[in-house]
Amino acid sequence: MEYFEITSINRGLREKKTEGVTEEVPLTIDINGKELATLLASPFDFKQLTLGFLFTSGLIEGISEVKSLVIDEERWKANVELNHEGFSDEMFFRRVYTSGCGKGVIFHNPLDLIQRVKLPAGFEIKSEKILEIMKIFLSSSAEHRETRGVHSAALAGQDGILIFMDDIGRHNALDKVIGEAMMRKIDFGEVMVLTTGRISSEIVAKVMRCGIPVVVSRGVPTNQAIKMAKEIRMTLAGYARGHRMNIYTIEERIK
Amino acid sequence: MEYFEITSINRGLREKKTEGVTEEVPLTIDINGKELATLLASPFDFKQLTLGFLFTSGLIEGISEVKSLVIDEERWKANVELNHEGFSDEMFFRRVYTSGCGKGVIFHNPLDLIQRVKLPAGFEIKSEKILEIMKIFLSSSAEHRETRGVHSAALAGQDGILIFMDDIGRHNALDKVIGEAMMRKIDFGEVMVLTTGRISSEIVAKVMRCGIPVVVSRGVPTNQAIKMAKEIRMTLAGYARGHRMNIYTIEERIK
Repeated sequence: MEYFEITSINRGLREKKTEGVTEEVPLTIDINGKELATLLASPFDFKQLTLGFLFTSGLIEGISEVKSLVIDEERWKANVELNHEGFSDEMFFRRVYTSGCGKGVIFHNPLDLIQRVKLPAGFEIKSEKILEIMKIFLSSSAEHRETRGVHSAALAGQDGILIFMDDIGRHNALDKVIGEAMMRKIDFGEVMVLTTGRISSEIVAKVMRCGIPVVVSRGVPTNQAIKMAKEIRMTLAGYARGHRMNIYTIEERIK
Repeated sequence: MEYFEITSINRGLREKKTEGVTEEVPLTIDINGKELATLLASPFDFKQLTLGFLFTSGLIEGISEVKSLVIDEERWKANVELNHEGFSDEMFFRRVYTSGCGKGVIFHNPLDLIQRVKLPAGFEIKSEKILEIMKIFLSSSAEHRETRGVHSAALAGQDGILIFMDDIGRHNALDKVIGEAMMRKIDFGEVMVLTTGRISSEIVAKVMRCGIPVVVSRGVPTNQAIKMAKEIRMTLAGYARGHRMNIYTIEERIK
């Protein structure tokens, strides 16, 4: 857990608070000296994660195939030596696997992707307006109401929701919203992303890619998402429901 | 939405019901005739998903690079033609990206992975026992209580929880539990998996890989998860909280 100073808004009352935020780190797994994959994970129980991951991914048949498993806690590395050489080159393809509530896929490490381009000031919106739009957003999904099995994402402007999408994956829902916005040629600088899912570094990376300045979630961000958002000057608001929300970064855009 | 006949248990009262379950399908994206990736997604808005995915993954810079985008709704295929040939072979590496609440990674299509080996009958447990264990499970995570940012997974036997793990990704949490169980040499045939996340086909595939006969979730399964579980005779229970739960498949194991 990492502590951040946040701004909490409750029935219009704004105050500074310190809040504990869950941590997200990239764990890179090397097998017999070759990089296999990078998992975005919580920074504990790396040994168990590595072993379970290798097994459930079909890369090992059991623990007896593991000659040694050494965790470098400082550099977030798992060094695995196996008793056999049974890996195809395919498996060593460098990839980042993603975490978070929803399908996640990125072809880059999200921390590399960010091109350190700061988002412009421009877009501003009132907190009451956000909560009003959020209320509609959170009750808009018939699929969720009936199945409880999907996440929603939306793009909203000053006047409300412009695009609304559902998917079993929160990343898919966001990609759908962005795809539709591209077709409609919506100005990304004048809108905000709404999501039912947590805000991980990959979500920040996807939103950054579009140049959208604000993300509002029913859920919470990870520490990595907050750090990235601060750097690129993206506004992150979480826990947005009822009459309250927390602003984690760049609160100036929310009046 | 697909309808299934389920067994609902409420304060010990067992009854048959019909319930709508959210759908999950594999959408394969082909670029210039070559397979790029398979996304597990909800079966609607494939055009938006494909376009948004290509953009947020850094594969296209804008919609003007897309010459044509044709969706084959029957075969869950997106055929994309681009104006340029700017893809490296790396990107065409065949992969399945995964959905659901948590980091998902598999090296196979989960629907292929299942080797159609049926799980043996053996393990049985009372529904009251499950709800008792589930109650402890759902209040066990200090990290969740403090940050609201993690998922939990556990392995439990007749006498309660044996292993408990947290992670920002629900797949990671499950992999950690499995990794720890491998180290402790726990008999997978005599335990059940508990999870705070939804049950997608990948979760069923991971659990199947271990030969664990029962999965209990606070959330709901997808239609694909139910179909796979039926075939391999895995018991899936969802919505397990308070005094109630739904049994989606192979109810004989829950007394």
